[in-house]
Amino acid sequence: MRKITASVLLHTLLCFNTYGDEGMWLFNALPTERLQEKHGFQVTAEWANHLMLSSVRFNSGGSASFISSSGLVLTNHHVAADTLYKLSTPERNIASEGYYARSLGDELRAPDLELNQLVSIENVTARVSAAVGPEMDAADASKARQAIMAKIEQESKEQTGLRSDVVTLYGGARYHLYRYKRYTDVRLVWAPEAKTAFFGGDADNFEYPRYCLDVTVFRVYEDGKPAQIGHFLEVNPDGATNGELVFVSGNPGRTQRILTADALEYQRDHRMPRILDLLRRKEILLQQYALGGPEQARRGQDDLFGIQNSRKAYTGMLAGLQNPGFIAEKRSREGQLKEAAGGGEAWETIAQVQQARVAMENRTGSLRSQIYRFAERLVLMAAEDELPSPERLREFRDSNRQSLEQELFSPAPLYDDLERVQLADELARFVETRGGNDELVQKVLAGQSPRDRATALIEGTRLFDVDARKKVAATGIDGIASSLDPLIELARILEEEYRELRLLDEELDERERQAYAKITEAKFAAEGESVYPDATFTLRLAYGLVKEYEEDGQRVPSNTTMGGAFEHEAAHGKQDDWILPESWNEAKDKITSSTPFNFVCTADIIGGNSGSPVVDRDGKLVGIIFDGNIQSLTADFYHSEVQGRAVAVHIAAVLEALEKIYGASDLKEQIGR
Amino acid sequence: MRKITASVLLHTLLCFNTYGDEGMWLFNALPTERLQEKHGFQVTAEWANHLMLSSVRFNSGGSASFISSSGLVLTNHHVAADTLYKLSTPERNIASEGYYARSLGDELRAPDLELNQLVSIENVTARVSAAVGPEMDAADASKARQAIMAKIEQESKEQTGLRSDVVTLYGGARYHLYRYKRYTDVRLVWAPEAKTAFFGGDADNFEYPRYCLDVTVFRVYEDGKPAQIGHFLEVNPDGATNGELVFVSGNPGRTQRILTADALEYQRDHRMPRILDLLRRKEILLQQYALGGPEQARRGQDDLFGIQNSRKAYTGMLAGLQNPGFIAEKRSREGQLKEAAGGGEAWETIAQVQQARVAMENRTGSLRSQIYRFAERLVLMAAEDELPSPERLREFRDSNRQSLEQELFSPAPLYDDLERVQLADELARFVETRGGNDELVQKVLAGQSPRDRATALIEGTRLFDVDARKKVAATGIDGIASSLDPLIELARILEEEYRELRLLDEELDERERQAYAKITEAKFAAEGESVYPDATFTLRLAYGLVKEYEEDGQRVPSNTTMGGAFEHEAAHGKQDDWILPESWNEAKDKITSSTPFNFVCTADIIGGNSGSPVVDRDGKLVGIIFDGNIQSLTADFYHSEVQGRAVAVHIAAVLEALEKIYGASDLKEQIGR
Repeated sequence: MRKITASVLLHTLLCFNTYGDEGMWLFNALPTERLQEKHGFQVTAEWANHLMLSSVRFNSGGSASFISSSGLVLTNHHVAADTLYKLSTPERNIASEGYYARSLGDELRAPDLELNQLVSIENVTARVSAAVGPEMDAADASKARQAIMAKIEQESKEQTGLRSDVVTLYGGARYHLYRYKRYTDVRLVWAPEAKTAFFGGDADNFEYPRYCLDVTVFRVYEDGKPAQIGHFLEVNPDGATNGELVFVSGNPGRTQRILTADALEYQRDHRMPRILDLLRRKEILLQQYALGGPEQARRGQDDLFGIQNSRKAYTGMLAGLQNPGFIAEKRSREGQLKEAAGGGEAWETIAQVQQARVAMENRTGSLRSQIYRFAERLVLMAAEDELPSPERLREFRDSNRQSLEQELFSPAPLYDDLERVQLADELARFVETRGGNDELVQKVLAGQSPRDRATALIEGTRLFDVDARKKVAATGIDGIASSLDPLIELARILEEEYRELRLLDEELDERERQAYAKITEAKFAAEGESVYPDATFTLRLAYGLVKEYEEDGQRVPSNTTMGGAFEHEAAHGKQDDWILPESWNEAKDKITSSTPFNFVCTADIIGGNSGSPVVDRDGKLVGIIFDGNIQSLTADFYHSEVQGRAVAVHIAAVLEALEKIYGASDLKEQIGR
Repeated sequence: MRKITASVLLHTLLCFNTYGDEGMWLFNALPTERLQEKHGFQVTAEWANHLMLSSVRFNSGGSASFISSSGLVLTNHHVAADTLYKLSTPERNIASEGYYARSLGDELRAPDLELNQLVSIENVTARVSAAVGPEMDAADASKARQAIMAKIEQESKEQTGLRSDVVTLYGGARYHLYRYKRYTDVRLVWAPEAKTAFFGGDADNFEYPRYCLDVTVFRVYEDGKPAQIGHFLEVNPDGATNGELVFVSGNPGRTQRILTADALEYQRDHRMPRILDLLRRKEILLQQYALGGPEQARRGQDDLFGIQNSRKAYTGMLAGLQNPGFIAEKRSREGQLKEAAGGGEAWETIAQVQQARVAMENRTGSLRSQIYRFAERLVLMAAEDELPSPERLREFRDSNRQSLEQELFSPAPLYDDLERVQLADELARFVETRGGNDELVQKVLAGQSPRDRATALIEGTRLFDVDARKKVAATGIDGIASSLDPLIELARILEEEYRELRLLDEELDERERQAYAKITEAKFAAEGESVYPDATFTLRLAYGLVKEYEEDGQRVPSNTTMGGAFEHEAAHGKQDDWILPESWNEAKDKITSSTPFNFVCTADIIGGNSGSPVVDRDGKLVGIIFDGNIQSLTADFYHSEVQGRAVAVHIAAVLEALEKIYGASDLKEQIGR
């Protein structure tokens, strides 16, 4: 699945080498010449502007598009999963069974979704760079850069009322101001069953051929009414034929193609193995929790899916890095670039930063737990609010307050048994990371075993309650200092270490930014500016051909069909995750079995692109990205189109399913209008 | 499950503090006074000798007992699982469906089982100690000690024809020669379905109440005929009532109760977290492999069960160590003992050894893969055979040749797809452990990614074939040097590093042995010799009461019933791992539902005790150990009988099931006769 992998810090980096249909292009710097030369396609400003305004970002980590004038938004089921899960109860398991609102009144409001529509992009590099003096050390430079970025954002927000983010591009060589219209009243219209959305489960994930109806429809509201949408996508159900040029407009979360060989080695030998250990640990933990019963399975399902997805993605990424040829080639290419840059100083800085990161591996000042995260946010927020907005940690600035409060005061359900299990594991991991003799560990455990301590914290805290969180937030710095809530007390214990590590991390980031900026400038000087920056979970345009490929000597056709889903089910003995929902079996005779279901193209995508619209030359919707195949998993580091493919749901299948399987012709009629 | 956890090096250590019914006692040093005082039980030499000779060790990692004059051996299904798995084929899944041989001719010979019957114990401490001069450094001392132990073993084997092992006890303070009669013609008589043997699956494992028919019956043969057994257990189906004194005779694999606080900290902060990362990694790997289809699920099942079992056990052990009180108390007690020892030198040595082990963490010269293990053994054996037997690595000495060849030339099935997946993961782990830039890593990968390299190795090797392995073994050192088998070549690449690390490890072991011997002598001097040594996977006697306990304010009765199994199934909705086999449902009306099924006692057991007979005061069989509850998982480090319990199958349930469920009255009639 191509949703952004959870809790991964976004690094803003750059790619040098563009081959074939590689590239995640900025909407203000589209590869017009390349498209003209290679595909004979003329990008017009109008075409691009319409596509940009029709595109939607799910702040929870995915992409989407407007598909009607009345506010309908189309995304993946797995992008919606987090919301479907939060809307579910033991009695009404929407995440598993699906949902269809037959009238506006039945549409269910998501507890904490924020959707963004990119409205404009402005280059503010000069202003950002001017604020950072060449004489500053990394800590001061980082502060100064953060401050000017915050100032630009705040001014923009005040002037326009729009969400305003300064985005670091090309690893720090360019800074662009992105302005978004925010939608926070988002309601669920239709979702199919998990059995069809995630048909084939973890086994089929990142594989192809596929047969997944991985789609969900929301509607955005304004002032309590369906929003009037000026730019939305019309549909072309006959599109996405083999060989056709298509475009993907979405928010790739992160690529790391700029990384130097040293930085890649750090990823290969340190960061990725540690992340994988962590993911496998959480996967087993949630599996064990789910053994507690069907209700536990339901409660843990959303997290478990996300973790399995990340684990599979990271396994593929690490495998790519462990191929001895890749880093060696990168290192040999660096030799030439160093000459162009007049020396290897920037590369040396990056190597040093990697060593510093290794040295930090056994320190941590936080716990990966939802309930603890509330406490941590509250403790930090109280202190940060004492500072002027631009001097605060980024997420606590006034410009980000709405998003922060949306998270902090979300009425989404929290389950104390699940939180206890996860907190106990995090406390155990805290001991393992820092060692049992560490002073901070001893303070955190307060003489108890991780399990007992977690039980006491969960029993003692009031933070499960939204109103309690609001009350704590309202008490400010003095209230936090005197709070007897045990989780707030715990977050206070960890605050100093958290801040120290955060500062250290930001210093290292700044040193990397400056170094990558130099490398980028050398690259620009040598090859011109017609390169795209690494992904930053901001809107990009990718393009490619709908294209079959070969695997193990076999031809893999570019699309599957709805009839093929039944064959795939039979081939796997109709068991485990290969059981189509009842609704499909009931409608089997009505479905036109040759309807294209899923298809692949060579467009350059990565996690975060999930839910991205796929459009044809006319800008009409032909599909929705939901995955990449296993050969595409190197995309963090390089694009490959020999076998690597983006995988999409064909729009024809969505329309066919709405009408023939889900009795949702009303909804179908609204799409594209 | 209480089978020994896989691939864990056995450490031979000592326990100091005996409370309640704690203790895994040597058969030549039974706690006669304690039993007399506390339980009014008089141990006679005859009673003990009969029990010792009726006890059986499964060299694959479990315990058992003779239960008939005609060679019947009773153990756990999960101890037998490895063999059941090896006897299974896609067409006849014995491991899952069970088996019953209605005649001798139907009994199935296990491909590579070795059963041991302990015949005598002799104290050889003086001879071992005399060979190790006080002036020797650790490396020389280790060599000298290994050599004299090998010599004693070889002489004993030549004199008696018996398997002869010198066992290091009390961490190195005592050395005893154990002589065993070996049985290698072992045939499967009866095994129930996995659904009843492992009812409740991973979720119920290490839990209580339980409802598992975790038993399997083998028969040992000599000269092609059922062996005549002089000492076997009679049965008492009315025994094991609440409050009754019972005895457990089996082979606990390893405890580490002697460990100093520093050594415990090493376990807590380094070794256990690393083992758990490894186990979780392998668990996910095998789960993913099993998603390939039912046949893959079957092939991976045995390994997966073992790994899940270990993961759960280690999770419990680490949780015990992370309790801040435990190590602190140990350290405070050490203060007093150091005074008695005239200084803390021995403790300081042990602390240094732990640091040396941490420094070795990122080195490895081996791969955890069955097919690679064959190559490694063959390469090492060829070189070792050039040396006189006592100078060889232990497993290659003449006295161990039979056991080695039994392993090396086992006809048990190997699956190339499973081996490839596991080898690829091991190669990836090799890169992660040593770092991708390591010279040895580059040699091992030979320019390929771990996955491609594994594919090439598996496709190229001939070692899947037993005859090919025999042929390679026969070629000796020159044949190995010139072999073009890619796995042999790989093992040659790793040989130097393997040997260096093995030597280093043995040096560290020797330094620990000497230090723990000093600590033990101080302890003996202060408190007399009435303490038991840490477990060493040799025969021990434990004892305790059949005893109910309280958990979360609820009384947990000391036994469950066969009728309760059906209730437990219903309570879990008859799904997942809570589905009784068809045979049980068919026999439901015939089964006397009040028949005791599983029961608990306070006896001090640990992994390796699985399959141990539980006998009453008269030495009659009342049950078979198969597990410990979750509260007993601290047993590696300390025994606790507040809630900690050993869990056994009641013999009455075995007899009832044989007659009423499995139509095996013939077999039932042989038991105890």
